[in-house]
Amino acid sequence: MNSAAQSREPLRWTITTQLPVAYEIVETPGLLDPANPELLSLPGGATGTETRLVVLDHSVSDLYGERIRAYFDANDVPVTYLSMPGDEESKSIGNVLDVVAKLNEVGTNRLSNPPIVIGGGVLADVVGLAASLYRRGIPYIRVPTTLLGQVDVSVAAKTGINFGGYRNRLGSYSPPPRTLIDREFLATVPRRQIRNGMGEIFKMALIKDLRLFELLEEHGADLIEARFQASGGGPLPAGVPDEVIGRAIAGMAEELQPNLWEKDLRRSVDYGHSFSPLVEMRALPELLHGEAVAMDCVFSAVLAAQRGLIDEAVLERIIAAAVRLGLRPSHPLFCDVDLLTEALADTVRHRDGKQHLPILTRIGEVCFLDDLSVPEIASAADRMGRLLGPAAVPVAAGRLG
Amino acid sequence: MNSAAQSREPLRWTITTQLPVAYEIVETPGLLDPANPELLSLPGGATGTETRLVVLDHSVSDLYGERIRAYFDANDVPVTYLSMPGDEESKSIGNVLDVVAKLNEVGTNRLSNPPIVIGGGVLADVVGLAASLYRRGIPYIRVPTTLLGQVDVSVAAKTGINFGGYRNRLGSYSPPPRTLIDREFLATVPRRQIRNGMGEIFKMALIKDLRLFELLEEHGADLIEARFQASGGGPLPAGVPDEVIGRAIAGMAEELQPNLWEKDLRRSVDYGHSFSPLVEMRALPELLHGEAVAMDCVFSAVLAAQRGLIDEAVLERIIAAAVRLGLRPSHPLFCDVDLLTEALADTVRHRDGKQHLPILTRIGEVCFLDDLSVPEIASAADRMGRLLGPAAVPVAAGRLG
Ligand SMILES: NC(=O)c1ccc[n+]([C@@H]2O[C@H](COP(=O)([O-])OP(=O)(O)OC[C@H]3O[C@@H](n4cnc5c(N)ncnc54)[C@H](O)[C@@H]3O)[C@@H](O)[C@H]2O)c1
Ligand SMILES: NC(=O)c1ccc[n+]([C@@H]2O[C@H](COP(=O)([O-])OP(=O)(O)OC[C@H]3O[C@@H](n4cnc5c(N)ncnc54)[C@H](O)[C@@H]3O)[C@@H](O)[C@H]2O)c1
Repeated sequence: MNSAAQSREPLRWTITTQLPVAYEIVETPGLLDPANPELLSLPGGATGTETRLVVLDHSVSDLYGERIRAYFDANDVPVTYLSMPGDEESKSIGNVLDVVAKLNEVGTNRLSNPPIVIGGGVLADVVGLAASLYRRGIPYIRVPTTLLGQVDVSVAAKTGINFGGYRNRLGSYSPPPRTLIDREFLATVPRRQIRNGMGEIFKMALIKDLRLFELLEEHGADLIEARFQASGGGPLPAGVPDEVIGRAIAGMAEELQPNLWEKDLRRSVDYGHSFSPLVEMRALPELLHGEAVAMDCVFSAVLAAQRGLIDEAVLERIIAAAVRLGLRPSHPLFCDVDLLTEALADTVRHRDGKQHLPILTRIGEVCFLDDLSVPEIASAADRMGRLLGPAAVPVAAGRLG
Repeated sequence: MNSAAQSREPLRWTITTQLPVAYEIVETPGLLDPANPELLSLPGGATGTETRLVVLDHSVSDLYGERIRAYFDANDVPVTYLSMPGDEESKSIGNVLDVVAKLNEVGTNRLSNPPIVIGGGVLADVVGLAASLYRRGIPYIRVPTTLLGQVDVSVAAKTGINFGGYRNRLGSYSPPPRTLIDREFLATVPRRQIRNGMGEIFKMALIKDLRLFELLEEHGADLIEARFQASGGGPLPAGVPDEVIGRAIAGMAEELQPNLWEKDLRRSVDYGHSFSPLVEMRALPELLHGEAVAMDCVFSAVLAAQRGLIDEAVLERIIAAAVRLGLRPSHPLFCDVDLLTEALADTVRHRDGKQHLPILTRIGEVCFLDDLSVPEIASAADRMGRLLGPAAVPVAAGRLG
């Protein structure tokens, strides 16, 4: 292109602005009581009366479908229902587009009749992504019904689906304006799924909350046994389920708020999420997310112990706590040095070329490493081998099964 | 769920934060000159050396492919190329996923090797959406090569694809940190596509810039003839192409900056975009976006004249200007009252239940209507019928063909 033009100074226009974001998590017992208005109230406080799309997890539909229908009927709100399985394979673009097609069918507006998703993390991710794309983003209401959903997904701004063999390769940051939590949904969640949620609470305790860790040590097994329902009687003190869920949510909220879009790629909440994503994908459908996260928490603690950042005794305590929660501390894939190295390489791409590896300095505190070596991984993988096998799973875990 | 629990006050956690957004549009002649660093410099100023994905519009690949390859070769940057057609049918989820697969293949990081898209609005929308979803959003570099791309898409924060028969039904707000404009790409753009871009400049003039409108009246035909290349000789004064493009970009930037996420659904830039989306989709592939927009501009001016908001003389002046730009003022679908009513109904859903219809009060100023009636649409459709036919297209337009 001609050199006269080239010698001209470039012209520039700059656009700078700020997107204000606010969303709330409301813990409201009796959510499905027709007299409880929370499920209908829109962001801003109005009450919706137009047709709503309500997306239900298959199990939720089986267990709570009748009450959910009764709730909307009693409140005279027309609803179109869509039901979907809540397994990892369902986090697909196909399911996102199914939700989008339903939003079209319902005649979804930009603001006034947001869809409602009632289910676990899988459904929240799928419907969240569909809503974030629809008309370039409409609000949605999230009702997490699993433990993982209530303590972790509940606070998250993220949505995601798997693609090309990678977990959450596609997604968005689009928190729903309202997330509603009713602990009583947990009464029907399979125990393995409760333990799965415990994996994320375990992580939160490790990175920032010694008191929460102690609560898990003392009451973890009973919480799982009671599925977080406060009976009043039994070995579980009445305030404990609320305190554990509350501390987990508050911890998550505190970590996310200043870094919602992950502009800072050194994130302590990534603890347990550096090696596990690939392990989880490769092990599909064997391992649940929280199970893989718990293993990564242990693996990362082994790395910390090898560096002398924590004592061997602390490492043992961490492993024992995982085992008490019925979470296996290790897996053959955590002994596979090549796979772990590949997992770290992908994580490094996700952290823009840096490891930014959260590592414990004690229970309740992390630092970040950027120089983890393959020999260190190999040596930790070796240790993980010794944690394998039924011998490591205590008798107590059987009771929780 | 038990009434004791129900009587407890809901617990609330609130997350409030702000997402800072900044992006720039740089007009840089000689973009493909290997000595021009603009195409390589990353947001923040560093220069990328890792493998980049460069997505090219088919025509751009044919016309500029060799020079683009030479540019990256000369700068020693490894590139993986992907080429795609730039037609409206290509704004599909399938193409978005093709881009995503290539991003996987290249090993795209979160920040350090953003993809580059060189093409018209279609490619910008497709690659923009892919980038906004990839790892929940990575940066990308946008090089618009059509007139519409340079004056309108260039400033936009939006991405979008068509779905289920609706234009831009899925998309995101995710402006690329850098958009690079080189007017010399326009030298090869087919004249019909130049007129198409004129449709959006025409709209911008109508809603806020009488001086721009006068420039179009005086030089529009010559600008199209010269494809915005300043020859120095001929009937086109040297400064006019820069002034027209500059006023269009600046006007757009001014309108978008305070309302980037369209929290305010009364948008004057929606002028010409209330009825045209459905018309454009129904007429596919007959009408281009800017052609349909120009017709909607005229239709909306007819509505304004019917209400007495503008004089009949002003309406005539607007129609004459469109015709001088070689833009047909009307189309049989703009005479179809049912279709126009349906189009408005979908637009109303998009504006959350309100018409928020931008309407001229004079050339360079709009107000908003919320009470347009079907009889008004019918009467305007009738007038559009009288603007149909070859009689309405002047001899001058032939010269531009
Ligand atoms: N967006 C985020 O930030 C974020 C955070 C953490 C996890 N996640 C995602 O969440 C997913 C895991 O979520 P999850 O653990 O909730 O799994 P899930 O959604 O797969 O649900 C687990 C199982 O529980 C069933 N279920 C749900 N509610 C039930 C109930 N009340 N009673 C009985 N059964 C019920 C489901 O049908 C499913 O079979 C993963 O895909 C993970 O990536 C996302
Ligand atoms: N994101 C936004 O905010 C926004 C704004 C306006 C328009 N758009 C979208 O942009 C699209 C229209 O964009 P467009 O008008 O650029 O159309 P386009 O991308 O379809 O390009 C038009 C034609 O020009 C060809 N072409 C491109 N550059 C060329 C060059 N330098 N020389 C020769 N031929 C060239 C293409 O191959 C194509 O055939 C629509 O889909 C519209 O929705 C988006």
